[in-house]
Amino acid sequence: MKAVVIGAAGYAGGELVRLLLGHPEVKEVIATSRSQAGKRLGDVHPQLAALTTASFESLTPVEAAAKADVIFLALEHGESGKVAGELLATGKLVIDIAADFRTSDKGLAERFYGPHPAPELLPQFTYALADVVGDALKGKKALAAPGCFATAAQLALWPLKDARVSPSLFAVTGSSGAGVGLKATTHHPARAHNLFAYSVLSHRHEAEILQRWREWTGNRTAEARLMVHAGPFVRGIYLTLHARGEGLSVDMYAKAYAGRPFIRVVDQPPELTHVVGTNYAHIYAQVAPLGREIQVSVAIDNLVKGAGGQAVQGMNLALGLPETAGLIGGGVWPI
Amino acid sequence: MKAVVIGAAGYAGGELVRLLLGHPEVKEVIATSRSQAGKRLGDVHPQLAALTTASFESLTPVEAAAKADVIFLALEHGESGKVAGELLATGKLVIDIAADFRTSDKGLAERFYGPHPAPELLPQFTYALADVVGDALKGKKALAAPGCFATAAQLALWPLKDARVSPSLFAVTGSSGAGVGLKATTHHPARAHNLFAYSVLSHRHEAEILQRWREWTGNRTAEARLMVHAGPFVRGIYLTLHARGEGLSVDMYAKAYAGRPFIRVVDQPPELTHVVGTNYAHIYAQVAPLGREIQVSVAIDNLVKGAGGQAVQGMNLALGLPETAGLIGGGVWPI
Amino acid sequence: MKAVVIGAAGYAGGELVRLLLGHPEVKEVIATSRSQAGKRLGDVHPQLAALTTASFESLTPVEAAAKADVIFLALEHGESGKVAGELLATGKLVIDIAADFRTSDKGLAERFYGPHPAPELLPQFTYALADVVGDALKGKKALAAPGCFATAAQLALWPLKDARVSPSLFAVTGSSGAGVGLKATTHHPARAHNLFAYSVLSHRHEAEILQRWREWTGNRTAEARLMVHAGPFVRGIYLTLHARGEGLSVDMYAKAYAGRPFIRVVDQPPELTHVVGTNYAHIYAQVAPLGREIQVSVAIDNLVKGAGGQAVQGMNLALGLPETAGLIGGGVWPI
Amino acid sequence: MKAVVIGAAGYAGGELVRLLLGHPEVKEVIATSRSQAGKRLGDVHPQLAALTTASFESLTPVEAAAKADVIFLALEHGESGKVAGELLATGKLVIDIAADFRTSDKGLAERFYGPHPAPELLPQFTYALADVVGDALKGKKALAAPGCFATAAQLALWPLKDARVSPSLFAVTGSSGAGVGLKATTHHPARAHNLFAYSVLSHRHEAEILQRWREWTGNRTAEARLMVHAGPFVRGIYLTLHARGEGLSVDMYAKAYAGRPFIRVVDQPPELTHVVGTNYAHIYAQVAPLGREIQVSVAIDNLVKGAGGQAVQGMNLALGLPETAGLIGGGVWPI
Repeated sequence: MKAVVIGAAGYAGGELVRLLLGHPEVKEVIATSRSQAGKRLGDVHPQLAALTTASFESLTPVEAAAKADVIFLALEHGESGKVAGELLATGKLVIDIAADFRTSDKGLAERFYGPHPAPELLPQFTYALADVVGDALKGKKALAAPGCFATAAQLALWPLKDARVSPSLFAVTGSSGAGVGLKATTHHPARAHNLFAYSVLSHRHEAEILQRWREWTGNRTAEARLMVHAGPFVRGIYLTLHARGEGLSVDMYAKAYAGRPFIRVVDQPPELTHVVGTNYAHIYAQVAPLGREIQVSVAIDNLVKGAGGQAVQGMNLALGLPETAGLIGGGVWPI
Repeated sequence: MKAVVIGAAGYAGGELVRLLLGHPEVKEVIATSRSQAGKRLGDVHPQLAALTTASFESLTPVEAAAKADVIFLALEHGESGKVAGELLATGKLVIDIAADFRTSDKGLAERFYGPHPAPELLPQFTYALADVVGDALKGKKALAAPGCFATAAQLALWPLKDARVSPSLFAVTGSSGAGVGLKATTHHPARAHNLFAYSVLSHRHEAEILQRWREWTGNRTAEARLMVHAGPFVRGIYLTLHARGEGLSVDMYAKAYAGRPFIRVVDQPPELTHVVGTNYAHIYAQVAPLGREIQVSVAIDNLVKGAGGQAVQGMNLALGLPETAGLIGGGVWPI
Repeated sequence: MKAVVIGAAGYAGGELVRLLLGHPEVKEVIATSRSQAGKRLGDVHPQLAALTTASFESLTPVEAAAKADVIFLALEHGESGKVAGELLATGKLVIDIAADFRTSDKGLAERFYGPHPAPELLPQFTYALADVVGDALKGKKALAAPGCFATAAQLALWPLKDARVSPSLFAVTGSSGAGVGLKATTHHPARAHNLFAYSVLSHRHEAEILQRWREWTGNRTAEARLMVHAGPFVRGIYLTLHARGEGLSVDMYAKAYAGRPFIRVVDQPPELTHVVGTNYAHIYAQVAPLGREIQVSVAIDNLVKGAGGQAVQGMNLALGLPETAGLIGGGVWPI
Repeated sequence: MKAVVIGAAGYAGGELVRLLLGHPEVKEVIATSRSQAGKRLGDVHPQLAALTTASFESLTPVEAAAKADVIFLALEHGESGKVAGELLATGKLVIDIAADFRTSDKGLAERFYGPHPAPELLPQFTYALADVVGDALKGKKALAAPGCFATAAQLALWPLKDARVSPSLFAVTGSSGAGVGLKATTHHPARAHNLFAYSVLSHRHEAEILQRWREWTGNRTAEARLMVHAGPFVRGIYLTLHARGEGLSVDMYAKAYAGRPFIRVVDQPPELTHVVGTNYAHIYAQVAPLGREIQVSVAIDNLVKGAGGQAVQGMNLALGLPETAGLIGGGVWPI
């Protein structure tokens, strides 16, 4: 099987290529990039230097798609939409890790991202929250991989779908989440040892979170507020959910994720460094006496579980491969 | 004026001594320590090397108190209670930065800290949340300085006292909050780049937070949940509050802290590094349309505003000195 | 093939187990530990949680050795020597990653480590600087894996063996090099953002470095000074060599390491994060005009190339397996 | 006394303003900036928010100079030279913290910085390595403050001026040394936890270091090689010198700096965090038996001792004020 990653020069693209290069069913990985065409992959993504001597290709998306069996889109938000139509027409599996097709609700999407480049394609994509959707992805031809914060948030929310709660979700991300582009908020002297909230009451991952939360709860006005923060580390997202309600229990989490290979419901608060480099989510839930209050913490690697790893897991599920193929291990500790 | 800091070998004690050495009304600072007696202060607390050539003294609390006009207790929790009685008997101002006298409610105190060494003294202490209590501290002889998380939490809660809300409070602390003693959670290989929740649904600062929150709201069952996390930095606490209610507004914060010299109600989310080394709290509030939801972030230095600085501010207020004496500036940035 | 790691509770032992679990020729890995016996490996070394459900066993070294084909010793310095005799008697491959058998010169060893527990065994061990010694390790039954600083230092020194120079070697290590035990120098509040020299003019890795340097140069008084520093990161060693001489050239490095699979002679200064998690050494050399001065930088992962990875590479070479088996890739970036 | 800082928007300019605002003899500080004109100083440099409500002014250098008694230039390299002539003509004290006037040797300067904008002014400036030059700065009207690496290097070199050695100098700087401008090397995901050499055998501070080293030794071909590295911290420079020679002794350092208020010759290796925020240099020297080899470590704050602090110390000396005015203390620890 051949895979192409279109727009592979970013951090998520690099990790996606790393995982595909180690995937037992993938024999070749083609990586395209306009900005890095001609450069060795290993010169842009150091973790690939030991794995491949290939270079970025300057193929157009359609040209690239013609050479592959599975097509990953790792473009900027808004760019996927421009090329998705042609790619879907090939009949091959298309997996977008950008935001363009994460909400089927055009209004919700446009509120956060502006005019959509291809609203008519929205219904064709399946939201691929792999650990929740699982085998139902089998046979799908168009997957929208969830955002990094949205993955952490929804993994915390899913077991509470019947609990009639309005959770508060606090999350802290590492600097890699802001991408390879230089920004004042990721300037080392300003980011090191720092912590700050941003996108207050307005983070754009709320679109995809709310759509799912309302579908799951069957309540069109259900609420769940995501409060994002930037932290002084590179890799990972740590999210803590808090909710008050009735009949809350720790078992909700054990049950919801029983048998799911990449979710570990752990018996003490997860640590961020334990999941770095891996496709695992570590989740811990604790309930106050009487079951009227719950605190849940989720740790994930934003570039693996929150991007490349979840996309590969989606590919595995869509193609009927073993769900864990190419995704076991990967952690290095201490780090 | 002479000040003594009893048990000054810890991080909070060191910062307290630093501030007192720079205080215009304090002519001498005596620091005692059993573990470090005889050592230069600057050899234990490097930031003091340029400020004093004094050494830790091995005086008993009573001996130390006899030499000073103001007595600061920077002992381990449980130790202050054992000596407070004798110190109060001197009639001098006593300021405890440990937890022993932070709640006047013995039951609440013992739930988190175990049997109290001197419950009969609890009513004599005033909880010195300086930025809220202000001039009402004038003339007090016994102050209990709030805990670091509790300070951040209460500064976020105070303006909401009439809002009939049950806030969720998410906080991240630096490793200095765990003290100078070696711990597995502050072992550098394990703490660097890491983030994790702890004391889930059971942090002991909840005692002092809840007592105040219930007094302020006049509601004996009012709730406010603190969720603490350990972050990969040394200094500071960042706290974000979330609440749903009615009639919430940003003005609540501007009004509550109008004229308070160490509270800056800022117009974008505060950054942790901006307050490191200082006695300032930076607070930002944002309200959702219709005023039904509020997100508030507070940044403080855990060892200054959350310990030594607030204690000095309390001293200033109790003695009728200018509130800001010895507490202006102190920040170094970038850091 | 079965492998046993005796004393696997430390950081180097954990990484060694990780690599062995991913080794294509190793079917089973037994890990022993007195302190952690009975605990899951993944509970002590989080990176192993996805790879094995095994627990630490409490076997004695001899019992453990009886169950395996290859025996790794990851004990404290001084402990390997006590058990090495019995293990060598089994005729199986024994690889010690502690310091006990790194110098064949008893005097040099005892100057830095004190009385040797088994000096009569010193001649039986081969110093397994894998990237230099290579195929000459084939068939050896007792390997002493080099120390972490020593590995970086010797990789910088080897190509200069005929250059008649007395290099200065400046190195910075991450905190994981100091081990899992709590120490004042690895207390997070004191280690974060810090940098400091230690073991000035007396680091114990000098014993093994000098022995090799003098053998290589054929000069019994040849000098090379290692100056070690502790840096504010967890993983890796960065070493810069400086020397003045005659006829120095960059080609010395390209030639010395031609064909060696884990040495990359790179064309700009290496970055530490590029080798974290891997068995690679990145080396860069630059020469001043006229060839009278050389600066060389080496970056390695202290726990992989400097411990577990090099030990596995030694095993591969000793047993005639492909040198790179189980050791390709492993990097995660950015981190 | 009024001071003006021309081009105060950078990190060094910010720290310079902070120190001037706390200086007992400075009644007003005017800060100019083209890029930040009109903005509050505290909005650009958070550490100033508590100290002043002033804004950056858009005055030309000549206009600014007319308003002040002392003129600090904190412009980009190459910019100071364009305006220095007019400023010197005012007869007021001019202190340049850029590189333009650090070498009196035009050839050496141009080798590293390109064509000089005002070579005819080079002889008018005095190189103000304050801790070495001391009172000899009294009455000078034009000071060139040394570079940050150069300061650390020269403080290590000065006591060795008669030792006939060719030292190797290894140094690591924090990211603030690269300035406020966004760079790939200070992008947080790439810089955090990283370490790398740069400007190999060609760092431009070598110009000023070599000029002084050759003057001090009286040897026009004396050598001293600076090897710079970028480290994963924000603040400070740590430098280690190594040299082989004869008759080397630790006393050289104690003697050379006896009575100098900002040099502490310490009895164990300095730690970087102990000097952050301060104008102190901590220096440790150790000599091998027989005095044939020396290792020296120096820790400084790159923005204080290596920029703003040394400039203020130079001002104090030039104007005959107490050398330590406005420069005592300033450290915050742990940090």
